[in-house]
Amino acid sequence: MELSKIIASIKKECPDITSVFFVGCGASKAELYPAKYFFEGNAKKLRVSLYTANEFVYATPVAVNEKSIVITCSLGGSTPETVAASKKAMALGAKVIAVTHNANSALAKNAHFVVVHGFEANYAAKLEKMTLVLGLATEILNQYEGYEHYDAMIDGMSKIYDVIETSVATAVTSAKAFAESYKDEPVIYVMSSGATHEVAYAFSICLLMEMQWMNSGSFHDGEFFHGPFEIVDKDVPFILLMNDGRTRELDARALTFLQRFDAKTTVIDSKDFGLASSIDSSVIDYFNPMLISAILRVYAEQLALLRDHPLTKRRYMWKLEY
Amino acid sequence: MELSKIIASIKKECPDITSVFFVGCGASKAELYPAKYFFEGNAKKLRVSLYTANEFVYATPVAVNEKSIVITCSLGGSTPETVAASKKAMALGAKVIAVTHNANSALAKNAHFVVVHGFEANYAAKLEKMTLVLGLATEILNQYEGYEHYDAMIDGMSKIYDVIETSVATAVTSAKAFAESYKDEPVIYVMSSGATHEVAYAFSICLLMEMQWMNSGSFHDGEFFHGPFEIVDKDVPFILLMNDGRTRELDARALTFLQRFDAKTTVIDSKDFGLASSIDSSVIDYFNPMLISAILRVYAEQLALLRDHPLTKRRYMWKLEY
Repeated sequence: MELSKIIASIKKECPDITSVFFVGCGASKAELYPAKYFFEGNAKKLRVSLYTANEFVYATPVAVNEKSIVITCSLGGSTPETVAASKKAMALGAKVIAVTHNANSALAKNAHFVVVHGFEANYAAKLEKMTLVLGLATEILNQYEGYEHYDAMIDGMSKIYDVIETSVATAVTSAKAFAESYKDEPVIYVMSSGATHEVAYAFSICLLMEMQWMNSGSFHDGEFFHGPFEIVDKDVPFILLMNDGRTRELDARALTFLQRFDAKTTVIDSKDFGLASSIDSSVIDYFNPMLISAILRVYAEQLALLRDHPLTKRRYMWKLEY
Repeated sequence: MELSKIIASIKKECPDITSVFFVGCGASKAELYPAKYFFEGNAKKLRVSLYTANEFVYATPVAVNEKSIVITCSLGGSTPETVAASKKAMALGAKVIAVTHNANSALAKNAHFVVVHGFEANYAAKLEKMTLVLGLATEILNQYEGYEHYDAMIDGMSKIYDVIETSVATAVTSAKAFAESYKDEPVIYVMSSGATHEVAYAFSICLLMEMQWMNSGSFHDGEFFHGPFEIVDKDVPFILLMNDGRTRELDARALTFLQRFDAKTTVIDSKDFGLASSIDSSVIDYFNPMLISAILRVYAEQLALLRDHPLTKRRYMWKLEY
């Protein structure tokens, strides 16, 4: 079902929704973040929250009820905590939308609506999850409150996949250079701001720690000057994800500092890929995370190749019960 | 002014507040988190957000208006981003409450109300900021919506300082053992859940990275199994902050895993300090962060001693413009 029709259907039955909850774990939680960030910044009345699934299950917010929309997200649709959260939301009377790659999964079966996203086809397909969730947030906001840049958002969502595919094709050379330079680092820091904040987080905990067993930390670059920057020294390795949009000032301030003290700095900058030539400035903030995530995927692939450590290699995940 | 009177005064002038924003940077942002977590979990209608100050300044949420309460927080009251955020909130017509140690600071001068907290006197004084902000959140919730456990919260706030002072006195031996064991680690991970989530964050970015120049990363322990746990191996160092409350299940699951694979694990557990003997179970979740922060302070002090690296030592902060 089209996103707009899902929300129209919910609105018909429940015209007085008061809160929206996004619930997921790990990469899926991080992929919900741009939608949460968009919604929190633009909603005039509606509430929004983002929870890691088990916290939603064990310390369920009192506002989850028949006036809530709960969006749950899991790639394979079998993440136990997220399935439990979806069931809990259903039991509390919320309208539940599952976003998953697997239409027959437990998550899909424990929801009122299912949004199925791609994954294997190409880099753009890997960003469908994040983009469709942003699309759901846009529909909720527009249908319940009105959103003045709705047309620009819809237009952006029609173009971002082409931007991604065009951009990744040009990223391999710089990705190889990154991999060569960072492959033996004892620890790598990642930071960004705005809608891209949790792209830094996901690259740190999933691509580096989970898929490469490399030590890493991440933080918002607005926080950099209030603690983490004291770790900066010549050659300490950072990855800075730079947005084209309102929080670029924060990213740029961090870059200036990293350069001043000769930190080892890799920058992935939406401006270098011409995001603004496809996406209207009124909504560009919200499309940086899709583009930058795709570029980072190329970077991770080159790192995995050079380290002879496939991105699918695990010691615990999928191998044992925990 | 008493916290209850500040909120009563705001309510008299503005009975239809719709949103609450917490704004700060670094440790001050983290110290706002327990109040935000409490409010998000217990408010039925009111919205709540927590922003790092510069993001609030550069990408100001559209809901900041005359129906908002904005709580800004800075120890010295001179953090430029937080002062700018306070000014912006005032200009947009919000009711602004500054929480600071310095009653004559720029932050205090750019607010409708000022809450002054202690710091130097003892460990309890260092936790006044976090506790008073939770007190403000409790008053807002109770006066605008009603909060069934209000009396238990007020009672808890009258007792937590004694719990802290009693507990820190017993923590020195284990803190020395921690310092001896972790002083030469190349990287240290910190994790927790619930209201204590950003205590882990603050220990990682402020105590370890900023004040000890030690590499570190932090994450919610509900997220541990969705990425970070793949870094676990024999002797990889973790600090796990265990709550007495609803999310203890998440903390315990992480502990079981760490022990199973012989990770180097330091646990700071509210149960070991008898938090439940002073704080009612209906509100205990929200008092873990104060107790655990105080214990961590003792741990950091012992680490600093053994490493001959005072907690006040900086290379950039307070020394140059950036």
